[in-house]
Amino acid sequence: MSAKEVSFPRDLPRKSEFSEWYSEVLWRAEIVDTRYPVKGVCVWYPFGFKLRNLIYGILRSLLDESGHQEALFPLLIPRSELLKEEKHIKGFEGEVFWVTRGGFEELEMPLALRPTSETAIYPMFNLWIRSHRDLPIRIYQIVNVFRYETKHTRPLIRVREITSFKEAHTAHATREDAERQVRTAVEIYKQFFERLAVPFVVTKRPDWDKFPGAEYTIAFDTLMPDGRTMQIATIHMLGENFSRTFDITFEDADGTRKFVQQTCYGISERCVAAVIAIHGDDHGLVLPPEVAPVQVVVVPILFSKASTAQTTQTHSQSSQGSSSEQSISAKEQEASDAESTNKRVLEVSRSVCEALKSAGIRVVLDDSEERPGAKFYKWEMRGVPLRIEIGPRDLQAERCVLVKRNDFQRIAVNIERVVPVVRETLSQIHAEMREKAWRKFAERMHIVRASGAEEDGETVLQEMSARVSEGGGIFSVFICDSEDCGRRVKETAGVSVLGEPCEEQNEIAKCIICSKDCSRKYVAKAY
Amino acid sequence: MSAKEVSFPRDLPRKSEFSEWYSEVLWRAEIVDTRYPVKGVCVWYPFGFKLRNLIYGILRSLLDESGHQEALFPLLIPRSELLKEEKHIKGFEGEVFWVTRGGFEELEMPLALRPTSETAIYPMFNLWIRSHRDLPIRIYQIVNVFRYETKHTRPLIRVREITSFKEAHTAHATREDAERQVRTAVEIYKQFFERLAVPFVVTKRPDWDKFPGAEYTIAFDTLMPDGRTMQIATIHMLGENFSRTFDITFEDADGTRKFVQQTCYGISERCVAAVIAIHGDDHGLVLPPEVAPVQVVVVPILFSKASTAQTTQTHSQSSQGSSSEQSISAKEQEASDAESTNKRVLEVSRSVCEALKSAGIRVVLDDSEERPGAKFYKWEMRGVPLRIEIGPRDLQAERCVLVKRNDFQRIAVNIERVVPVVRETLSQIHAEMREKAWRKFAERMHIVRASGAEEDGETVLQEMSARVSEGGGIFSVFICDSEDCGRRVKETAGVSVLGEPCEEQNEIAKCIICSKDCSRKYVAKAY
Repeated sequence: MSAKEVSFPRDLPRKSEFSEWYSEVLWRAEIVDTRYPVKGVCVWYPFGFKLRNLIYGILRSLLDESGHQEALFPLLIPRSELLKEEKHIKGFEGEVFWVTRGGFEELEMPLALRPTSETAIYPMFNLWIRSHRDLPIRIYQIVNVFRYETKHTRPLIRVREITSFKEAHTAHATREDAERQVRTAVEIYKQFFERLAVPFVVTKRPDWDKFPGAEYTIAFDTLMPDGRTMQIATIHMLGENFSRTFDITFEDADGTRKFVQQTCYGISERCVAAVIAIHGDDHGLVLPPEVAPVQVVVVPILFSKASTAQTTQTHSQSSQGSSSEQSISAKEQEASDAESTNKRVLEVSRSVCEALKSAGIRVVLDDSEERPGAKFYKWEMRGVPLRIEIGPRDLQAERCVLVKRNDFQRIAVNIERVVPVVRETLSQIHAEMREKAWRKFAERMHIVRASGAEEDGETVLQEMSARVSEGGGIFSVFICDSEDCGRRVKETAGVSVLGEPCEEQNEIAKCIICSKDCSRKYVAKAY
Repeated sequence: MSAKEVSFPRDLPRKSEFSEWYSEVLWRAEIVDTRYPVKGVCVWYPFGFKLRNLIYGILRSLLDESGHQEALFPLLIPRSELLKEEKHIKGFEGEVFWVTRGGFEELEMPLALRPTSETAIYPMFNLWIRSHRDLPIRIYQIVNVFRYETKHTRPLIRVREITSFKEAHTAHATREDAERQVRTAVEIYKQFFERLAVPFVVTKRPDWDKFPGAEYTIAFDTLMPDGRTMQIATIHMLGENFSRTFDITFEDADGTRKFVQQTCYGISERCVAAVIAIHGDDHGLVLPPEVAPVQVVVVPILFSKASTAQTTQTHSQSSQGSSSEQSISAKEQEASDAESTNKRVLEVSRSVCEALKSAGIRVVLDDSEERPGAKFYKWEMRGVPLRIEIGPRDLQAERCVLVKRNDFQRIAVNIERVVPVVRETLSQIHAEMREKAWRKFAERMHIVRASGAEEDGETVLQEMSARVSEGGGIFSVFICDSEDCGRRVKETAGVSVLGEPCEEQNEIAKCIICSKDCSRKYVAKAY
C-alpha cells in the first residue's frame, strides 16, 4: 500500500494580482463560498465563520466593557416607518429589498428588509425613553442587513446580504454627551482595528457624502493592496434629526420636555475582508493570532509509511526463499526502528498539543495521512500563525521547530519550553504584523504640496492621476468642502474625497480646483 | 430631601391566569417588547437577549462538543430552489414571505425569506461533498427564519420572525450512520432541556404530521401551565429525500456513487418561552441559575436617608436657639451613627459582590436609591435566583442573608463563607427547580386504560374531553396511526396526537376510534 497521493490546488494567484488573489483565497482558505444561487450573497464556511466570530468577539467585548448592551430588533420594517425620515429614505429607497407577499396574499403594507435599523429601533426608543433617568441608552445588535446593490458585487466587501452588521445606537440627554459618545466610538473602533493590526485613517466625511439623516459622519478607511481605500467603519452624529421624526423626548431634571440627542455607528464584515486582504501573502491568509481559528498546528514529520511497508512486503516475499537472510533482517530492523520512531514522534506531538491546549491556545494536531508538504500548504493557506514541526532528529535533541507564518522564520525550541515560547512568539507575530501593515500603509500616504495658483492645481491633479494608476494610496491635498470640487477631482484624477482628517492640526491653503481657502483632505481611489 | 418615591407596577396577573400572566411578564421582566409596528414580530430587550444568549450558549457548546460546526447560510432562497422538493414546498408554500422587489425594480426571480434552510444549504452540500472522506458533515446555524403565520401569534411561541432558530444539518455515507445521528441529536436535546430544568416527552410524530420531506420526525413536547403541550424541538430523518432532489452524491470507498443520507434537527426561541412559562410564579420569572443573566443581586439594607437628613435639618434649625442641647446632640449622634453604619453596610456589600464576581458568578449590587421593597420586586420579577440582604444587624453578626427565588427560603450565612454557600445554593436551586417541574409534569400525565369495545372508546373520549377542560395534560391512550382517527380524536376530545413515545415498551390494544390493534400514543391539547 503506497502513501495516498495527495492532490491539492497549487495555483493561488500572486497577491500582486490582488483581485484574482482575493477571490481565490476566500474559498481555498474556506472563508466564504460564492457559488450560492443568488447574486451577491455568500455562504460562510465553518472555518470562515469561526474567524468571523473571533473578530466580532473582540468588538462585543469592547462594546460591553464601555456600557453598551446587546439587543435584537426585527428584520422587517414597515414602509410607513422607513418613509418617515425624508433624507434617510432618500438615501436608501433605491437599494431596499421589499417583501410584498405573504403566502398567497399581497401584503397591505410592503415590508423592507432593513438596510440599517434606525427606523426599526427608534420607534422603540420612543416607547422606552420617558425621563432623563432613562438616559443615556447605548445598545447594539449584530444582524444581517440588505442592500439591493446594482454595482459589481464582491464577497465581504460589496454584498446584497451583509451578514454581520454591528450597529450601535445611542440616545443622550445633552448634545455634549452625544459628542462625547462619538469620541468614545472613535476610540473603541481604533482599539478594535489595532487588535486586528489593520491600519486606518479617520476622517470627517464631506457634508455632501454623509450618512442620510446625519449631522455629520466620521469614517475609518483602510488601504487595500491594490491601492484603493475601503471604508471599514462609520460613526454618525444624528443630533435631533431622528428624535424629532420619531418623537423621542424625555422629561429633563428641570421638568421640561426635550428631544434626545442621538448617535449611531456601525461595522460590517468588511473588517474580515480587511484582515484577509491586508495581511495575506502569496501563500494564502496570514491571520493575527488573536483571531486565528487555529493558532498553532503541530505537524509530526514521520518516516514515510510507503518505505516501511515496502520493506515489510519485500521481506515476506523473499522469506519463502532463504538467500540473503542477513540483509533481510537488517531491512526488517530498519523498518521496525522507523515504526517505533514514528510512534515516539506522534507521542511527543500529542503531548506538545495537550500542553498548548491546556494553556488556552487553539491548537490542532495534523496527524492525517497527507504528506508534510501538503499539510504545510493547507495550514499556510488558512493563515495559521505558527506551525510546530517535530521529526525524528528533533526527538534526540528534545526540541521542536516553530515556523512563523508571517515571515517563515524558523525557531528551534526545547520541548520543555514550548508553551511560554509559543505564547511569546504569538504576541511577537502580532507586533510584527502590525508594524509591517502600518509601514506599508505609511509608504502609500502621499502628502501633496500646497498649490499657490490655478496652474499649480492642474499639475497636482495630473500628478495624482499618474500616481493613482501607478499603485494608488491616500493623498493629503487641499480641496474645499464643495460637492462640485469633489466631483471634479473624481472626474479628473479618479479619486474621491474621503474627508478632513480628524485630530490633526490643519493648515489652510488654496483648493486645487476652485482656489478658495480650505483645509487638507484625504482623497483616494475608493472601493 | 425625602427619599425618592418609587412607582412600579404591582399588578402582575396570577400565574393561574396563564395567558395574561405570560404576556405581562415578558415586558415587565424586560424579555421582549411586542409593541413593534409589525404583527407577530418582537424586539428583544437587552436583559431578555442576555437570557437568550446564555440558553443558546448551552446549545452551542453541546453541539460543538459533539462534532458539529457552526456556519452561516443566506436568508434569501430563490423560488426555483424552494420548489425543488415537492413535499417540502407543499408544507411551506402557504406560509412563506416573498421578496419581489429590489429598489424600484421587480425581481426576475422572487426570493423567499427562509422558513427553514434545507433548500439553502443542500445546493451547497451538492458542491461540497465529493467523496466518502468528506462525510459525515455536521453543521448548524443560529438564524432568523420567517413564517407567514395567519393564526393568532404569541411572543416567542408563534411568531412571524423566529429570531433564534438553531438548525443542524448532517449528511452521512450510510443509513446506519444517519440513524445514529438521530439518536445523538435526541441525546443532545435531552441534555439541553435537563440543563434548563424543562420536562419533556419524546415521541415519533404520526406519519401524517411529520416534517415536509422527512421520512420520520421525532419531537420533544413540554407541558405549559395551561395544560397544553408545546413542541420545543424536532429531529428529522430525511433519508435520501433531499439528496435525490439536490443530487448530493459521494464516491464510496468501493468506487460506487451513492446518495448521502441526511438528517436535520431544530430548536427555536420556544426554549426560552418554556423556561419562562414553566418556572415562573406570581412574582415573575424564576430562572435556572445557569442561564440567569443575573445570578445574585446584593441589596444593602440601609437606614433611610429621609430620617437621617431630617435629623440633621432639625438640628441646623434649632442650633440657632440653644434650648435642649443634650437632646440635639443625641439626635445628631444618632444620625451620624446611622450614616457610618450605612457606609459600612455598603462597604461589606461591595466586598461580597467583588468576591462573588471573582468566583465567576454573575452578580449585581443594587445600591440605587429605591426602597428595598421596590428592589426586591424588580429582581424577583427578573427571576434572579438568589438575593443577598446585608443590613446593620447583619454587620455585627458578620453575616448576610440569602433569599432563594424559587421558594423564598432565607439562609443566614457567615460573610466569610458566602462564596461556597452561594455556589452550593445555586446548584441546589437548579435541582429543586428540576424536581418540582418534573413532579408537576408527572402529575399531569394521564395513563388511560385500554378499551376493549367500541362503547369503551366513547367513554374514554368523554373522560379525556372532560379532563382537557379541567386542566389538560398529556394522555397516554391507544389510538392507531391513521389520519382519520387523529382527526376524530381532535374533533371529539379536542386533543392532538403527539405520537408514539420513544424508548418505551409498548403494549398493543384496540384503537379508541376504529378498534384496530395499535400501540399507545401520547395525545394532548397542543399549542
